[in-house]
Amino acid sequence: MSFNSFGRVFRFTTWGESHGPALGAVVDGCPPGLNLSEADLQPFLDRRRPGQSRFTTQRQEPDQVRILSGVFEGRTTGTPIALHIDNVDQRSKDYSEVAKAYRPGHADYAYDQKYGFRDYRGGGRSSARETAARVAAGGVARLVIPEVTITAWVEAIGGDTIDYANFDATEIGNNPFFCPDPAAAARWEALVDAARKDGSSLGAVVACEATGVPAGWGAPLYAKLDSELASACMSINAVKGFEIGDGFAAAGLRGEENADAMRPTGDGGVDFLANHAGGIAGGIATGQPVRMRVAFKPTSSILIPVETVTRDGEASEIRTKGRHDPCVGIRGVPVVEAMVALVLADQKLLHRAQVG
Amino acid sequence: MSFNSFGRVFRFTTWGESHGPALGAVVDGCPPGLNLSEADLQPFLDRRRPGQSRFTTQRQEPDQVRILSGVFEGRTTGTPIALHIDNVDQRSKDYSEVAKAYRPGHADYAYDQKYGFRDYRGGGRSSARETAARVAAGGVARLVIPEVTITAWVEAIGGDTIDYANFDATEIGNNPFFCPDPAAAARWEALVDAARKDGSSLGAVVACEATGVPAGWGAPLYAKLDSELASACMSINAVKGFEIGDGFAAAGLRGEENADAMRPTGDGGVDFLANHAGGIAGGIATGQPVRMRVAFKPTSSILIPVETVTRDGEASEIRTKGRHDPCVGIRGVPVVEAMVALVLADQKLLHRAQVG
Amino acid sequence: MSFNSFGRVFRFTTWGESHGPALGAVVDGCPPGLNLSEADLQPFLDRRRPGQSRFTTQRQEPDQVRILSGVFEGRTTGTPIALHIDNVDQRSKDYSEVAKAYRPGHADYAYDQKYGFRDYRGGGRSSARETAARVAAGGVARLVIPEVTITAWVEAIGGDTIDYANFDATEIGNNPFFCPDPAAAARWEALVDAARKDGSSLGAVVACEATGVPAGWGAPLYAKLDSELASACMSINAVKGFEIGDGFAAAGLRGEENADAMRPTGDGGVDFLANHAGGIAGGIATGQPVRMRVAFKPTSSILIPVETVTRDGEASEIRTKGRHDPCVGIRGVPVVEAMVALVLADQKLLHRAQVG
Amino acid sequence: MSFNSFGRVFRFTTWGESHGPALGAVVDGCPPGLNLSEADLQPFLDRRRPGQSRFTTQRQEPDQVRILSGVFEGRTTGTPIALHIDNVDQRSKDYSEVAKAYRPGHADYAYDQKYGFRDYRGGGRSSARETAARVAAGGVARLVIPEVTITAWVEAIGGDTIDYANFDATEIGNNPFFCPDPAAAARWEALVDAARKDGSSLGAVVACEATGVPAGWGAPLYAKLDSELASACMSINAVKGFEIGDGFAAAGLRGEENADAMRPTGDGGVDFLANHAGGIAGGIATGQPVRMRVAFKPTSSILIPVETVTRDGEASEIRTKGRHDPCVGIRGVPVVEAMVALVLADQKLLHRAQVG
Repeated sequence: MSFNSFGRVFRFTTWGESHGPALGAVVDGCPPGLNLSEADLQPFLDRRRPGQSRFTTQRQEPDQVRILSGVFEGRTTGTPIALHIDNVDQRSKDYSEVAKAYRPGHADYAYDQKYGFRDYRGGGRSSARETAARVAAGGVARLVIPEVTITAWVEAIGGDTIDYANFDATEIGNNPFFCPDPAAAARWEALVDAARKDGSSLGAVVACEATGVPAGWGAPLYAKLDSELASACMSINAVKGFEIGDGFAAAGLRGEENADAMRPTGDGGVDFLANHAGGIAGGIATGQPVRMRVAFKPTSSILIPVETVTRDGEASEIRTKGRHDPCVGIRGVPVVEAMVALVLADQKLLHRAQVG
Repeated sequence: MSFNSFGRVFRFTTWGESHGPALGAVVDGCPPGLNLSEADLQPFLDRRRPGQSRFTTQRQEPDQVRILSGVFEGRTTGTPIALHIDNVDQRSKDYSEVAKAYRPGHADYAYDQKYGFRDYRGGGRSSARETAARVAAGGVARLVIPEVTITAWVEAIGGDTIDYANFDATEIGNNPFFCPDPAAAARWEALVDAARKDGSSLGAVVACEATGVPAGWGAPLYAKLDSELASACMSINAVKGFEIGDGFAAAGLRGEENADAMRPTGDGGVDFLANHAGGIAGGIATGQPVRMRVAFKPTSSILIPVETVTRDGEASEIRTKGRHDPCVGIRGVPVVEAMVALVLADQKLLHRAQVG
Repeated sequence: MSFNSFGRVFRFTTWGESHGPALGAVVDGCPPGLNLSEADLQPFLDRRRPGQSRFTTQRQEPDQVRILSGVFEGRTTGTPIALHIDNVDQRSKDYSEVAKAYRPGHADYAYDQKYGFRDYRGGGRSSARETAARVAAGGVARLVIPEVTITAWVEAIGGDTIDYANFDATEIGNNPFFCPDPAAAARWEALVDAARKDGSSLGAVVACEATGVPAGWGAPLYAKLDSELASACMSINAVKGFEIGDGFAAAGLRGEENADAMRPTGDGGVDFLANHAGGIAGGIATGQPVRMRVAFKPTSSILIPVETVTRDGEASEIRTKGRHDPCVGIRGVPVVEAMVALVLADQKLLHRAQVG
Repeated sequence: MSFNSFGRVFRFTTWGESHGPALGAVVDGCPPGLNLSEADLQPFLDRRRPGQSRFTTQRQEPDQVRILSGVFEGRTTGTPIALHIDNVDQRSKDYSEVAKAYRPGHADYAYDQKYGFRDYRGGGRSSARETAARVAAGGVARLVIPEVTITAWVEAIGGDTIDYANFDATEIGNNPFFCPDPAAAARWEALVDAARKDGSSLGAVVACEATGVPAGWGAPLYAKLDSELASACMSINAVKGFEIGDGFAAAGLRGEENADAMRPTGDGGVDFLANHAGGIAGGIATGQPVRMRVAFKPTSSILIPVETVTRDGEASEIRTKGRHDPCVGIRGVPVVEAMVALVLADQKLLHRAQVG
């Protein structure tokens, strides 16, 4: 199975490097007859676009997506949808030093060990630039699952967590941190600024909720909805951890504390009195909100010197210049949303395939 | 792609229910010429076998594995290896009540919503009995990766975590908890006993380390070694969270704290001064130990009554009788090891395919 | 992707060797709620069962299939269906000579070249015995596509072709050759007897028609219905050629001769005035009968001595004793039907996934 | 699994329509370090390029391929290779009539039945234009299998077959028919001209031989080398039949006639005295030349009126104007070669994965 494709029935393949001429995605298996134009995808790309605040990389990329196939007279035809994004603002000179020495925390050393050499310009294929293609593909996925609403936000930066008592979804778009807690957003401004000025970086936790997922999507055992979501999110650059529902906290609970008790709604439905499970049982959606958390490490590109080794095996020290996000987790928000949409679209079609 | 298969080139498929006549796995893509007999697999099955202490379910299953194909004159032939395990100690009467009402935390409701009905005997396909097939398949996988040593242990039960200062790998086999810290093992005996007597259950955290993984295994982007491991572990019953390396803790670090600085060994190799990344960068192994943590929720089957709903939509209350693990995470240890072995065997062959 | 699995959403995996203890198939992705018992599958196995006439191998195998999972209270649960068939009448002594020398036309030499050694007992994995597992799985597939009727027959043996003017589908079951032309069946009796007595063997052409396939099943471009059917049929032992519709004859036609002209039925439907295309255009079913032809080479196991080479590279001569079909194509009829059913079931679910 | 991807480890995905802005392929799983530039691919595209003689469509497409990713400093990096070909000479006006009525023999009706509507411009996704992407991808595949030489030619047009006594591989490039028999080439000139002037079209048989395929490539049972080749070739537009080795002729042979007798070479190798099997036994290469034949139907686009039906279900008659190949099989030659290269590259890597 290919390394750069994801999904089973609704499937996408991405290509492109940080400093190549372009990057893109091919979305295959999309249902026919969906209204689709660039205008449906651009807003998602604009949300993750760099250079929009001083809290993200200053690289200026318009990230204009073009649809090169699979759409006719404004509707999807059921054939592959090629999404194309040109790279505009490459500055390869920034990366000359990276050619010589390995950046700790980056894929440089691992790529060289695997492939024998690497495209060192901006990390090549391992650059987070690839996530633009995911976000474009995710925009298509959203059209496949109109019944679902997906919302992600930053829950913590550098260990400073929001107060869920202040949670206000409408605030997420009102600050450069995708933060639903205005008070936290204010604190983070100082926090991220300080890290940036230090030439350092910060990690973050992104939370995501998908509501409207019908009970029944998902499948045992190696296509579990939660294992698919984990795989999808762990494939995002800089992600180091994934939780569904209570996640690691559930490991500290007793059975009766963790039980999501049920009660009839009276109209034939079911009310759950809790959602420790995060909306999934046995790998299959229960109809409750699907809730997950994703851990992003701090950006590995920092100006603070770190001990390293050159390609020739000499001891060295490296300060990663170039333009980087001080907190890569922030722009992870639209990427997590996209990956969740891509998994759910695939699972919707898989469920329809088997159960009709 | 099939729901009950895992892997890309080294691939296995499992089948069977808790109370069916048998369960098994078919392992496909195994290299030829490996010495393999039931005796190579039985020790792994014996480690996860139920009924060996009062801290696991009292169901008595010998879990004797038989190899029905793919081996000739003691060696793998390169053709599918069928692994067969008979179910012996079914007591379906224990589960009659489950047919009527949904057990909160179990897959009962989700299965009914998906499939319209379910095999309610012992959870049917959603039972952890299926993990016996994984462990058998994992035993084959280990033969494919002799260069790798995989060790898992229980790190915490019910929130009580081991002291890594006391870590002694040789202790893992000396107690019924796969606990490397004798002091913690002693505490857990009382802890798990108490939960069992209360008819309750406990969650657990399982840690796993794979040493000897060569730099270069893994692949960008949707076959990342960490995303494959996450998918594999999240597919295990009762797992709610996965971390690679520092996981969620990394989200609280600054870039310089999270950097795994490098230093030449002098003989052309590289020393890493830390392993926050857990042995993987950009989805590809760095040659450091691959480290991960897996969160298991408390067993959902408890004797403490929980509010629920019947298949007919009536309010009800359920106490899950039958024989259950008070802490399903304990027996998760050999299962996590098996899944890690299965992922690494697949990634070894995938790497060989592309890079030779 | 695994070597011994077939299908995309409705997928099966087979295992087992000619002289192992058993063989079987795991069917995954089957819709839930279908009535299924061994009695639904046995008739298909009985049709391909050996030892039923002097025109097939005298090996006596009851080929009793057992369902070990995936069915509860007589209905499919949507989880994997394990099908198990014991081998009963192995006579490994028959095959001792095969261990030493390669049988021309058999997989012996190729297997040794690939794997370094082989299970030489009855051809091991390369034996047509494996087709019993396909036929069992095909029986499940038929339940998924009740709208479709699949009928295969032998069209020619040793170059002696039926006269379609005599075609009578009801005759297919009335002779040991699955022959719809009684006159041809009578000729073939003498023909096959003669070959058998000479210790020789004959090739055959099997034709298959699937009616009731709805327009729309199939997909461009690498999941074309015809390319799936070709792949499925070419995977059957001894098959050397595949045609859809007019096949190679179409290469001799002019465009106007090959055009399947269309005419309105008056009630909104369409009549086709011909079916040169064999019911498929652009990889997608047109609603016409899907027609294909499959070429089987003569059985490679013959008593007539053939020049060969030993494992040690010595010149030798081999006469393949043991019990063999004088015309393996005859028992290919139920196998072709099974493979066609398996492809159509998969394509039905794939179509439902994408188009709903 | 995706509909528009092919391959298992070495895998490609194509996208694009006849009259869209562009078409392309993404090649994934390519080994790193191979020298690759556009110049390596263009010659293959030039061979299939339209408008080069009066015997092919007059559509003028330069078919200049651009590599947008996966290559750095002239070498493949092991990451996805995006191949991009702009469409230049679209004349959508030619196709207005096709929007209204179904062209018999074309995918028009089937696409409408499946998807509810279609991109009618030049057949949209079902156009043979897509084969340009296959040929580009095939050029990459050839770099993966330098040990193999693949040669295809036209064996027959409109039922007029070459005389193999005249076979001269060097002639294949010397005439517009890829014909190895100069005498036949001369006859075909008149034959194809006549058909073109009649507004008719002709079918063709393409033969292909791959030499240098090492014994051992391929795998039982559903990844058989011959079933993969059949699937690959049957996925090409207008292909209706596939044969390996003697194909349907083998069905007329007796066992001793079909046996490929073996003899020691003296230096530890093996000589085969015949190659009825076409270089494959049990799905695995024997080391002999891999030989296959592919049947192409006559181009369905003809100027001779054919009875048909409109989208509204009215009786009609259609003459397909526009620019078409009088014999689509001719340009099938480079496409068959490409598909064979893509299968062999994948099987080489699969073999390496399992057997090392």
